[in-house]
Amino acid sequence: MRNRVNKPVILLVEDDDSHVMLVKRCLNDTNAAKEVCRVSNGKDALDYLFRRGDYADEEEKSPRPDLILLDLRMPKIDGLKVLEEMKGSKDLMDIPVVVLTTSENKDDMVRAYRNHANSYLVKPPDIDEFGEMMKETYSYWLNWNRRPK
Amino acid sequence: MRNRVNKPVILLVEDDDSHVMLVKRCLNDTNAAKEVCRVSNGKDALDYLFRRGDYADEEEKSPRPDLILLDLRMPKIDGLKVLEEMKGSKDLMDIPVVVLTTSENKDDMVRAYRNHANSYLVKPPDIDEFGEMMKETYSYWLNWNRRPK
Repeated sequence: MRNRVNKPVILLVEDDDSHVMLVKRCLNDTNAAKEVCRVSNGKDALDYLFRRGDYADEEEKSPRPDLILLDLRMPKIDGLKVLEEMKGSKDLMDIPVVVLTTSENKDDMVRAYRNHANSYLVKPPDIDEFGEMMKETYSYWLNWNRRPK
Repeated sequence: MRNRVNKPVILLVEDDDSHVMLVKRCLNDTNAAKEVCRVSNGKDALDYLFRRGDYADEEEKSPRPDLILLDLRMPKIDGLKVLEEMKGSKDLMDIPVVVLTTSENKDDMVRAYRNHANSYLVKPPDIDEFGEMMKETYSYWLNWNRRPK
């Protein structure tokens, strides 16, 4: 059994491997102990969160996240559908979901907020700015934001 | 006419004058141009947001906020009711609402998230910690979080 006492879990839902590497590197720069779990499409995200399919009876494989970083455009099931399903679940709705996308499209933002995304971030093209954004995102949601235990 | 170009508006919904002073002082420490509007109960918050009652036909008195800092326990109408009404409005639901309260009560957190609060912060008793939290809150929501224009 891994020891998860006080070690926050971040679920990264992202199909692009290079973006995953970049986000993980930025999160590592925060120097805080954490566990980053990654799934690469919306179907796996829902299976992970609802512990079904490949994640059924596998609590060890799918620790409940303290923060979800969610891409919008992904294979199988997109990020908006993930939002709709998990924010409709009383058990999952208090997990903060930060949309993390390249899309500056107004309709994407409107749809994300209508499906109760907690926040919407656009990946900056500049790597230092990306790092700064991830650092502040980590600090805000993991250090300050509170959720029911 | 005041010039609001690029000057974010924060709506502070708080009945306690000493907390208002403290929040305003912390926000001023961020050194960024901003306008802080304050209402002291949930009824006035809803009138402000929906531009009715004292705020009808008074766009100048009720600029659309870029961030709402919302206390929970207030006279007339409480913060949960404000959340429920504004997050049920397609026109207002994309405005981030950060609950800012002294309550660490689990049920308050559950109810706030069920009414689609974007985030829930507990006021720290230490003033420096409060200042740090407000600085990061300001930076996260006003500098990084994106909303449809």
